[in-house]
Amino acid sequence: MSQATAHYDLIIIGAGSGNSIPSPEFDGLSIAIIEKGKFGGTCMNVGCIPTKMYVYAADVALAAREASALGVDAQVNSVRWEAIVDRVFTQRIDKIAAGGEAYRRGEETPNITVYDQHARFIGPKTIEVGGQTIAGGQIVIATGSRPIIPEVYANSGVKFYTNEDIMRTPTQPRSLIVVGGGFIAMEFAHVFDGLGTQVTIVNRSEKLLRFLDQDLAERFNHDVRQRFDVRIGSGTQLEETPDGVRLTLDTGEVIEAEAILVATGRQPNGDQMNLAAGGIGMHEDGRIKVDEFGRTEAQGVWALGDVSSPYMLKHVANAETRAVAHNLLHPESLQPMPHDLVPSAVFTHPQIATVGMTEQEARGQGFDVTVKVQNYGDVAYGWAMEDSTGVCKLVADRATGRLLGAHYYGPQASTLIQQMITVMAYDIDLRDFARRQYWIHPALPEVTENAVLGLDFD
Amino acid sequence: MSQATAHYDLIIIGAGSGNSIPSPEFDGLSIAIIEKGKFGGTCMNVGCIPTKMYVYAADVALAAREASALGVDAQVNSVRWEAIVDRVFTQRIDKIAAGGEAYRRGEETPNITVYDQHARFIGPKTIEVGGQTIAGGQIVIATGSRPIIPEVYANSGVKFYTNEDIMRTPTQPRSLIVVGGGFIAMEFAHVFDGLGTQVTIVNRSEKLLRFLDQDLAERFNHDVRQRFDVRIGSGTQLEETPDGVRLTLDTGEVIEAEAILVATGRQPNGDQMNLAAGGIGMHEDGRIKVDEFGRTEAQGVWALGDVSSPYMLKHVANAETRAVAHNLLHPESLQPMPHDLVPSAVFTHPQIATVGMTEQEARGQGFDVTVKVQNYGDVAYGWAMEDSTGVCKLVADRATGRLLGAHYYGPQASTLIQQMITVMAYDIDLRDFARRQYWIHPALPEVTENAVLGLDFD
Repeated sequence: MSQATAHYDLIIIGAGSGNSIPSPEFDGLSIAIIEKGKFGGTCMNVGCIPTKMYVYAADVALAAREASALGVDAQVNSVRWEAIVDRVFTQRIDKIAAGGEAYRRGEETPNITVYDQHARFIGPKTIEVGGQTIAGGQIVIATGSRPIIPEVYANSGVKFYTNEDIMRTPTQPRSLIVVGGGFIAMEFAHVFDGLGTQVTIVNRSEKLLRFLDQDLAERFNHDVRQRFDVRIGSGTQLEETPDGVRLTLDTGEVIEAEAILVATGRQPNGDQMNLAAGGIGMHEDGRIKVDEFGRTEAQGVWALGDVSSPYMLKHVANAETRAVAHNLLHPESLQPMPHDLVPSAVFTHPQIATVGMTEQEARGQGFDVTVKVQNYGDVAYGWAMEDSTGVCKLVADRATGRLLGAHYYGPQASTLIQQMITVMAYDIDLRDFARRQYWIHPALPEVTENAVLGLDFD
Repeated sequence: MSQATAHYDLIIIGAGSGNSIPSPEFDGLSIAIIEKGKFGGTCMNVGCIPTKMYVYAADVALAAREASALGVDAQVNSVRWEAIVDRVFTQRIDKIAAGGEAYRRGEETPNITVYDQHARFIGPKTIEVGGQTIAGGQIVIATGSRPIIPEVYANSGVKFYTNEDIMRTPTQPRSLIVVGGGFIAMEFAHVFDGLGTQVTIVNRSEKLLRFLDQDLAERFNHDVRQRFDVRIGSGTQLEETPDGVRLTLDTGEVIEAEAILVATGRQPNGDQMNLAAGGIGMHEDGRIKVDEFGRTEAQGVWALGDVSSPYMLKHVANAETRAVAHNLLHPESLQPMPHDLVPSAVFTHPQIATVGMTEQEARGQGFDVTVKVQNYGDVAYGWAMEDSTGVCKLVADRATGRLLGAHYYGPQASTLIQQMITVMAYDIDLRDFARRQYWIHPALPEVTENAVLGLDFD
């Protein structure tokens, strides 16, 4: 490399969460942002945001098809896949991604230089990107994660989809094999089935969404098998057929479909950056090692988001980003990465949302727990919905009235959970919670009210 | 009356909320329950509960018809009105009402006698019911309310519907005039339009749902006129036609439809009970006068719910019932009727939910307010919903960070509001509220998160 090394006060690798760091407080620093893909990262381009746009369309289509239980006979005549792709990506996401990059390249942030190629460390706080060498006073690694592709698919030579391209496939497959049993697999199974694709789920183990509280896991695993063709086994061979793909399982089963989605999890991208040259260590699972403040093992180098976090969730990445942004400017008053009471939701049908401990975890930690599993179908709004599967499960500490965990499986789960997140964040005593406030009758939060009233603190 | 006067420790007039009073704590008292109609009262039989069951069916039908904006072309082929009536009433409500009465007449509450005729006072704590005279050590009046019927309809000799019978009409009218601009009128307009009836709204004044915060009222009044034929004027003549009814307005307009719903409000039923003979006073607006503990002007006589409350809302009636039930047994430690922070929802499309003060009220009380109107359409889940009308409006006290009022107009409003009810009940400071907890990304409560972040406390 004949070029001189360019020096920046701050180098940010990855323009997903990382791109939120340069607030006006950073205007006095020279900053390099390195992003080989699109600005906006996984969440914006191939993750949370577009998936929910597809999920919602699937929700509505499914509700129409199932409306006869309500006395309304409706049908879905067609799903205009191209229109969905256009609405989600061309009209919305791609503009935001392009706008984000243009902004950083533009006059409003003259202190920022954008590099659009792959970055790798070649020494302490020194990076090679597109043939150039740049060095940073501080560096933030926010390069995210990528799909895990088991070898049988990776080496097959056959086209398979991941979450990164399935939403942009030019036509909607008439049939789809979904490989995986985690939340990405389950959300896409819902999306495609909801929109009319014949879906077969293939998972290595019997239990789908195995991280759930046992009561929810049982309900979900029961219901998912009513809706989907679920096969338990591992793929051993993927072949192309005239009409699509053929997957052979270790059980001997053979499944054919027009397309296949591999959604067996995601792995951090730290292994692709020659981190050792920068003195940056990784955990065995591939995450960059960071301390509670987001500092890697190399002085002046930070990491956040999927590449280093124990939580691969955008709301966690956002919170880590805020902490690291603060810490970059305020070394005298470091803020910890906020990893307490992290909620999550799965936008299946119905939705699932959870915060805090499962009953099993709480008992494992020795709490004297009181538990209530409240059916949606036993409150008036649940009658309106003709809901027969939804539950809210609360796990509380009998001794103190504290909420230890809240778990929703049903309509609006991702909305209902927020009040319980507040309860935990403010350590509100549940013993007088139900009666200290009004609950609109008959609205859906009566599920929560009745769950709280069903806890036994005596 | 030749019969001797029967004496009861407690007489409860009205088996809506009133029927919740006799808990096991009352097993030692002789109790008369007087109910000339169905057990369960307005909410169960003709109000909150069945209306939400119709509303939800209308929600789903409307969502199907509007799904093309999401790339899903769906249609409603038919609405099986009879099936809805059967599901809501025959299969659900009527069984509960009948079961409630049978229970009170049955062996499990041998201390309770049920009277099924109209009650009127004939002296202090003395009632005539169905030709019998009964006296109570204590009496609870919980006789609810009934629709207000303007004379032009009442005296027309023409069949008109109210909320009490419109849901049981044997066939769905193809067209319907809805008279009124309050929440009952607006909910039924949504129900019938959603299910395919041609709806014309007639209201005396321009502003529908006039109790709303100004920002919400403007949005609602704009949107409602996009969906409905709204006529401003007062009916002057109602006539029967071969196909239904013809309504003439004071503006000269003439509207024809198959049916007409009069939903111009409800009035308390106290005027029908000869209260003066019992020494029980009423307000000018017809409500029974009660003190903060639910005591009427007559010693030993209590009132609760629509017949006396400033709030005609079932969740208020429930709370008043709990207070009065306590007070009946614990005269030494009376509990006040809980009238603080009463929320309400209107199950229109979209929903509306509100708690606390409007901006206008807060400013009128001299607060230095900070206000944020957050569009649903500016958070990711709003993108998924393609929502272009929803807002969350928060009104807070700049000096203290206290939430003064929360107002939602959009999907899931009646669910989202509950977290803000908690905030007000626990007097939580909004200044660090958004950052002290996680908000699942991208779920709908991000509307609230961003509203809170948009408040200006500096």
